[in-house]
Amino acid sequence: MHILIIGAAGMVGRKLAARLIADGGIGEKPIEKLTLVDVVEPEHPEGFGGSVVTRKADLSAPGEAEQLIESRPDMIFHLAAIVSAEAELDFDKGYRVNLDGTRYLFDAVRVAHNQDGYRPRVIFTSSIAVVGAPLPFPIPDDFHLTPLTSYGTQKAISELLLSDYTRRGFFDGIGIRLPTVCIRPGKPNKAASGFFSNILREPLIGQEAILPVSEDVRHWHTSPRSAVGYLIHAAKLDLDEVGPHRNLSMPGVSATVGEQIEALRRAAGERAVRLIRRVPDEMIMKMVAGWAPGFEAKRATALGFTAEKNFDEIIRVHIEDELVSIGG
Amino acid sequence: MHILIIGAAGMVGRKLAARLIADGGIGEKPIEKLTLVDVVEPEHPEGFGGSVVTRKADLSAPGEAEQLIESRPDMIFHLAAIVSAEAELDFDKGYRVNLDGTRYLFDAVRVAHNQDGYRPRVIFTSSIAVVGAPLPFPIPDDFHLTPLTSYGTQKAISELLLSDYTRRGFFDGIGIRLPTVCIRPGKPNKAASGFFSNILREPLIGQEAILPVSEDVRHWHTSPRSAVGYLIHAAKLDLDEVGPHRNLSMPGVSATVGEQIEALRRAAGERAVRLIRRVPDEMIMKMVAGWAPGFEAKRATALGFTAEKNFDEIIRVHIEDELVSIGG
Repeated sequence: MHILIIGAAGMVGRKLAARLIADGGIGEKPIEKLTLVDVVEPEHPEGFGGSVVTRKADLSAPGEAEQLIESRPDMIFHLAAIVSAEAELDFDKGYRVNLDGTRYLFDAVRVAHNQDGYRPRVIFTSSIAVVGAPLPFPIPDDFHLTPLTSYGTQKAISELLLSDYTRRGFFDGIGIRLPTVCIRPGKPNKAASGFFSNILREPLIGQEAILPVSEDVRHWHTSPRSAVGYLIHAAKLDLDEVGPHRNLSMPGVSATVGEQIEALRRAAGERAVRLIRRVPDEMIMKMVAGWAPGFEAKRATALGFTAEKNFDEIIRVHIEDELVSIGG
Repeated sequence: MHILIIGAAGMVGRKLAARLIADGGIGEKPIEKLTLVDVVEPEHPEGFGGSVVTRKADLSAPGEAEQLIESRPDMIFHLAAIVSAEAELDFDKGYRVNLDGTRYLFDAVRVAHNQDGYRPRVIFTSSIAVVGAPLPFPIPDDFHLTPLTSYGTQKAISELLLSDYTRRGFFDGIGIRLPTVCIRPGKPNKAASGFFSNILREPLIGQEAILPVSEDVRHWHTSPRSAVGYLIHAAKLDLDEVGPHRNLSMPGVSATVGEQIEALRRAAGERAVRLIRRVPDEMIMKMVAGWAPGFEAKRATALGFTAEKNFDEIIRVHIEDELVSIGG
């Protein structure tokens, strides 16, 4: 198989490439070629026997999508996106990258399909930002799309396009609504959701972290390992089983900040917990109030998608994947 | 006020212009100017004291939207669309007119807003085709968007854009999900949904009509008068009351074909009913099976939108508006 990853330099993209290389194939089918694309040139991954192409390309530039599919990859992971905060600050860039870029890709595949019957699998990372307050808890699979950010709007529109292009047979698509990925590895960043990771990741290495909201805030999480797991499962799944509604809310862990902190206490003790400093931030509190507390994810669970059961597991996965195997 | 109607030559557009002229204003505000636009030049309406501009223009041609809003209309009714069957047959045309055309309009208003603070009210006709099977009955207001046609996809995407552009303050938008309009005046047409109107309209004037589905098919209807009524109400409504979710399922009449026929019997007797010929059509039966049986429409009802209560009323409205006042 030839697999194309668009957005391969991001955190999930890098972990996905590593996992594909470790697995060597999708189910029974060996991977012969990997094409890794991003707006910055992705690193050349190690340990892969097949052919690897890394490429710097901007999907939102007209003509790029056609070039990316010229070699007719069998499977396309489309992970590329401007993140929520940037899409909110820069309206034009958000719509250009997150909507137009996605439509260019889908249309390039459609044109190729009409030319020669090309029909790849397309795996798209959507987001829980496609829903917005007021939200029930848990949110059922058939809850309406009411994004309250431009990012969420762009993801919801991309989901609709993916369903329609799939229904018409241009490609075989599946959209994966990622929960907030926690614990994000790396340094603290300025994303409004960053604290969910910071308050665990930093104390685990003896560093202070800031908590800007109250402990009763409930949100919806998954580990980086599970995020990659969804994508791998989506690559293997018999998509006819999924039916016409191709965008799925993934299983995840619904937890309050207080429950996150209790899990940290169990994993690393009271001294770790004492490294969390409460610095209330009105703006972040207001934003977070509209975020998803958790999903039923019945359809995805029935289709075999899995996640951690609780924050103890999420912390253990972080220790295994980031501290022991990388730092340790 | 200056009111722009895009799609003014269609059935709803013509009735809307006539109603606006009869009312003379939106609430307390008199209408000084009407601009009527469509891909065919709209007829010049009678009986209006203010200024009228009729114009042939294709919204999906780049640059047209900018010209349409150059005179900064206070209120824009965007009714223009390729219908469902045509959008399904001609993929490119459907996306060009129903998606790109709408986005060009919204973006032209956005650019004007950024230039000079222009912020019109935008009233958009969406459709019950934004949902698709499997469907509960009645369909709640918070049911997910799962269109199973390209037309429904284009309407759902336009709804999402309307919400986001409204949230960002570029215009003040409201999306009206029209039920199937019944009884459509005029001649029988080839739309798959045409029989819902044909089996009433034709017998009422002594003509035969064909029924291609069984009498237990349930669907969601509104009269042309109520369709225009929704738009007028949307023009008057305090949109702050609507909140961030700007796309509303309208109230309507949920009825089986059998109930439609019973209403015809009450209105026009057994001889009219005998003019309905049963000619089962497998393809139409299959399509109709996925259509919406009816909506709760709680939010729209609470906001004061109204429709007929049953098919007796829908037939009476048709007789009053089409037979007595036009033919009679």
